Amino acid sequence: MERIDFQCDYLEGCHPAILQVLQDSNLEQTAGYGNDPYCVRAAMRIREACACEAAEVHFLVGGTQTNLLAISALLRPYQGVLCAEEGHIATHETGAIEATGHKVLTLPDTDGRITAAQVEAYCRAHWESTVQEHTVQPGMVYLSQPTECGTLYTRAELAAMHIVCQKYGMPLYVDGARLGYALATPENDVTLANLAELADLFYIGGTKCGAMFGEALVIANPAYQKDFRYMIKQRGALLAKGRLLGIQFDTLFAENRYVDICRQAVAQAAALREAFRGAGIPLFGQSPTNQVFPILTKAQAQALSEKYVYSIWGAAADGRTIVRFCTSWATRLEDIEALCRDIAAL
Amino acid sequence: MERIDFQCDYLEGCHPAILQVLQDSNLEQTAGYGNDPYCVRAAMRIREACACEAAEVHFLVGGTQTNLLAISALLRPYQGVLCAEEGHIATHETGAIEATGHKVLTLPDTDGRITAAQVEAYCRAHWESTVQEHTVQPGMVYLSQPTECGTLYTRAELAAMHIVCQKYGMPLYVDGARLGYALATPENDVTLANLAELADLFYIGGTKCGAMFGEALVIANPAYQKDFRYMIKQRGALLAKGRLLGIQFDTLFAENRYVDICRQAVAQAAALREAFRGAGIPLFGQSPTNQVFPILTKAQAQALSEKYVYSIWGAAADGRTIVRFCTSWATRLEDIEALCRDIAAL
Amino acid sequence: MERIDFQCDYLEGCHPAILQVLQDSNLEQTAGYGNDPYCVRAAMRIREACACEAAEVHFLVGGTQTNLLAISALLRPYQGVLCAEEGHIATHETGAIEATGHKVLTLPDTDGRITAAQVEAYCRAHWESTVQEHTVQPGMVYLSQPTECGTLYTRAELAAMHIVCQKYGMPLYVDGARLGYALATPENDVTLANLAELADLFYIGGTKCGAMFGEALVIANPAYQKDFRYMIKQRGALLAKGRLLGIQFDTLFAENRYVDICRQAVAQAAALREAFRGAGIPLFGQSPTNQVFPILTKAQAQALSEKYVYSIWGAAADGRTIVRFCTSWATRLEDIEALCRDIAAL
Amino acid sequence: MERIDFQCDYLEGCHPAILQVLQDSNLEQTAGYGNDPYCVRAAMRIREACACEAAEVHFLVGGTQTNLLAISALLRPYQGVLCAEEGHIATHETGAIEATGHKVLTLPDTDGRITAAQVEAYCRAHWESTVQEHTVQPGMVYLSQPTECGTLYTRAELAAMHIVCQKYGMPLYVDGARLGYALATPENDVTLANLAELADLFYIGGTKCGAMFGEALVIANPAYQKDFRYMIKQRGALLAKGRLLGIQFDTLFAENRYVDICRQAVAQAAALREAFRGAGIPLFGQSPTNQVFPILTKAQAQALSEKYVYSIWGAAADGRTIVRFCTSWATRLEDIEALCRDIAAL
Repeated sequence: MERIDFQCDYLEGCHPAILQVLQDSNLEQTAGYGNDPYCVRAAMRIREACACEAAEVHFLVGGTQTNLLAISALLRPYQGVLCAEEGHIATHETGAIEATGHKVLTLPDTDGRITAAQVEAYCRAHWESTVQEHTVQPGMVYLSQPTECGTLYTRAELAAMHIVCQKYGMPLYVDGARLGYALATPENDVTLANLAELADLFYIGGTKCGAMFGEALVIANPAYQKDFRYMIKQRGALLAKGRLLGIQFDTLFAENRYVDICRQAVAQAAALREAFRGAGIPLFGQSPTNQVFPILTKAQAQALSEKYVYSIWGAAADGRTIVRFCTSWATRLEDIEALCRDIAAL
Repeated sequence: MERIDFQCDYLEGCHPAILQVLQDSNLEQTAGYGNDPYCVRAAMRIREACACEAAEVHFLVGGTQTNLLAISALLRPYQGVLCAEEGHIATHETGAIEATGHKVLTLPDTDGRITAAQVEAYCRAHWESTVQEHTVQPGMVYLSQPTECGTLYTRAELAAMHIVCQKYGMPLYVDGARLGYALATPENDVTLANLAELADLFYIGGTKCGAMFGEALVIANPAYQKDFRYMIKQRGALLAKGRLLGIQFDTLFAENRYVDICRQAVAQAAALREAFRGAGIPLFGQSPTNQVFPILTKAQAQALSEKYVYSIWGAAADGRTIVRFCTSWATRLEDIEALCRDIAAL
Repeated sequence: MERIDFQCDYLEGCHPAILQVLQDSNLEQTAGYGNDPYCVRAAMRIREACACEAAEVHFLVGGTQTNLLAISALLRPYQGVLCAEEGHIATHETGAIEATGHKVLTLPDTDGRITAAQVEAYCRAHWESTVQEHTVQPGMVYLSQPTECGTLYTRAELAAMHIVCQKYGMPLYVDGARLGYALATPENDVTLANLAELADLFYIGGTKCGAMFGEALVIANPAYQKDFRYMIKQRGALLAKGRLLGIQFDTLFAENRYVDICRQAVAQAAALREAFRGAGIPLFGQSPTNQVFPILTKAQAQALSEKYVYSIWGAAADGRTIVRFCTSWATRLEDIEALCRDIAAL
Repeated sequence: MERIDFQCDYLEGCHPAILQVLQDSNLEQTAGYGNDPYCVRAAMRIREACACEAAEVHFLVGGTQTNLLAISALLRPYQGVLCAEEGHIATHETGAIEATGHKVLTLPDTDGRITAAQVEAYCRAHWESTVQEHTVQPGMVYLSQPTECGTLYTRAELAAMHIVCQKYGMPLYVDGARLGYALATPENDVTLANLAELADLFYIGGTKCGAMFGEALVIANPAYQKDFRYMIKQRGALLAKGRLLGIQFDTLFAENRYVDICRQAVAQAAALREAFRGAGIPLFGQSPTNQVFPILTKAQAQALSEKYVYSIWGAAADGRTIVRFCTSWATRLEDIEALCRDIAAL
């Protein structure tokens, strides 16, 4: 029997509405490199969703690509980017940022989050140093919404971070690989418009949120928009048939589809949490989004792995293991129900 | 009236057979990052087509990305890559190679091609110099098949290049963005198996030859295979849903589809050449593949641009203009017939 | 009154014997770029001192330059260098290693030192990971002898590190900015010959150990010697009048001068430690070399700063401050005696 | 018999006045990294000599280092630097600029010089292109004064270059490795003050003009001064005992010594030219500075090489060879007289 896979949120293809448009438009002739009507309309829809007329929107293929482009475009050679120790750029991108010449400056995080006070302290120490030029200058702040641990920044937290970034002349960049799930979470109070106001740039993840592939980088602050297409081309990230990306985001941002299709995944994750709690199984961290982190005994882990696939997240105290179950826009209701029953039966 | 576009060979989506598999497999769950059955099978088919069991095949998203990865993975920091002056990496990739730290060392080309003798002379001069370490060491040779000008290397020319590369310890790399059209050209005598034998690595272009997007990098020489997936991830080129690429190449390399779908385009290009010659219009260069370069008077250019779109290639003597018409797997027969009639009527 | 400066060991010019040779040879004509008789003889003397005939010796200008050259020459693009958290490349070189594209992978250190067991654990975790290509591959180990904290690795510790490096195919590199003081310390059991045997490459610091400027990089392992002069030139580190460096190291390595001139500094540091202990002032760490780290009360710090300059090293518990006094080959006996008296009077 | 060497202008040590100050100051204690009184005074003297109060002056070790720092500090990642085909950064720095990620964009030169009209044409073509982001953006202009061929730009030529650079928002950078010889040439009409006005930054060469080593980078335009010390440190170019550089430039810029000591070399070169012409030997190019390029027959070359060393510059028509004789501040009058006699006797 094939096991049901909850390892991550990019196991399936894409939302059927996207496939339909790809099919319908397949033999149209359009200009390349993003200069096509689909990209134009998708960008317009995203600007509207962000309530940010001045934003520039670029469609890129993947998350690491987007991160390295955004960061290397904005930093001066001797600057680094502040980031949580658990941050994706610090841990799971094979040194992609360093490969562009920049150090990732890590700060200890709490459940994936760092605070404005930490950034303030780091910057103050740097700028008060008499040998500052012997150390990497903090030049940017990188956050994820939701974080690697599935947690969310509040609007107030982002506003505080915005202020400290302004104070030290650093752009604020938000990695939104799973942004759809953040926007679809009831506890969330950060809208796209808030992001466009508080962050200088951020990306709206497609790959994990219904698209076949692709991320939409929103450069909200015009100060950082200049010449970005040169950067994209130079890093091998300018898709010849750019319309493939335009079509996907145009479809996702029509009729609020982007958030709607994530909402069910968040509800399913909540049901899973409920099931784990009901079975007396503790959860690691406070994720309210589509990632669930139960702490399993060996027997529990073994039992669940017979029918389900999940990720190993880390070791907990007393020999138990933190694992991750991920739901997505494509998770089937019957699979969640079966899993909940199996959890209850543990 | 919408004009018919012959500007390039990446104006449409993809071959319908590919869309069908994307549709059929859409809700399957598969492992990410190229570790799925489609990628495995596509790689197997490509190894077979290349008659090279030892080859490693990596599926990447675009040509510039593939070039920069292949080149930066193989060169030492102080080495550069030899290349025709017209070479894509030298002219149209925004310095992507230089951005990885390496100089592109250009050689004057003839209709897009460079010779083994030129490479030999360059290398001999370098290695005989008493101040060689003050100059960039030639570390690799880059060719395109077909070239930017649509011309082809013969098997004998590639064999000669292979020998000089071996002599100076340099890998030979072939950019096959339009390789399908080369393979489908009657004049061509270089098979995939020849490429796998004479080049150390090369890529089989998908984007321009029937795929939605994607290129298959074939590292034929095991000496250059080590750790390549790290490189891919670090440059932001490891597609999360790698199967999208696997599906495309699996479909293209089933039943010889890759070459078959390019054959018609080459025949159409030949018909166009015939039409231009018939109308007394000279052609620039010797391209036998899917690119046609007529030299037009202002009046001719104007007349054709009313119904057709083409690219400007350069200025010819006596005020005429070299333009490019490109056919592709997607070019419709009726459009070629109409264009041939309009050429005859010039 | 001018205060006496103990801030660091590069406050004065150079040993008078060096100045004398510079004077005597000033109007000689010699070939540039290190191809002169002084460099040849200095390299020969260093090979002899290291008992390593196969070693290649390169003369460079400064420590950061030497580190970035040695590390970027040996790593593949996706590899990083393991290093103590306090390591100079991790803290005080403005991201010089990252600027060459490589991540510095830090390990928690004890008084500046890391252990073979830590390196083993890090590498095992990397190579056992199923997603290893999503993370930076450990490709090299960087140590300092003495460390930033003035402590020393023993021969046994270096041998253990050598074994783990061999096991994982990583070169071992030792930063010897203050190597002269290590060699001159009675507790030290690591000779130059041991270094040449256990490390693949290391540098013999000149700037802090009697030279005007300059470091001698010893590439003991022939596997890493190829084409290094290209690297030097490319990074702007090939001194036109290379003989300036040759003269300095030729003079330092004649008659064992290099170690002899450091011996007095180590003895002076020991005297300072004795004085601090005698005054009931605790010392931070276990440095037996030319760096002394007393932990001072505000009053003590204030009192000493009236006549002496020292560095602030960090904050200790209970409001006291860790400071650093550094002796050097140039420290005058009367200054040490005065300082000892003033410490006793605290 | 030792031959007299005219290969280049960095064969000897340094002007005796510099050695004297190094000797006198040797045991002084001064702050490191350029924060010492010698550097402060040298910078002040250079600002005065340039009549540019706003200039920032940095003392660096060598020419390639200075070039790569100046260029990589000012360019955005996708920009390249325009340069003569013969430019030092294009030919003899082992791809140092490319190693920082930037392409060198070469323009054909005439006797080492490029024109404002060439730069204008290149920029216009770039900015008029509809696919400009597929090519490297011209971001800076690099000139040498004197050029590699010993020729000089006139004030009018530099003013024209300044205007085109302003028009396209590009800084103008002048490599002055041999600037002293330019300033000492009677035909020259470009003063240091002119350079500070017309170039955004330039360097005053020390290595070839009387110093032991070192170059003084003058950033005349405050727009490009920010954070430059971080760049210096990151590239391994911040000399610990920075005063060594300060002392040299302080001594060279006292009492107009910098130009005075070069004047004799230029006169000696003029005498050599006169001798060659007198012997019916043609000269290559129009160098009026300290480099002389006679075109020798095999017999002449052979005859002169018995007593003198010169450089091979290239092949001339009809089998003759272009060679280079270089004079310097250290060239002895009796050597020139002997050489002139031997030329006359050819």
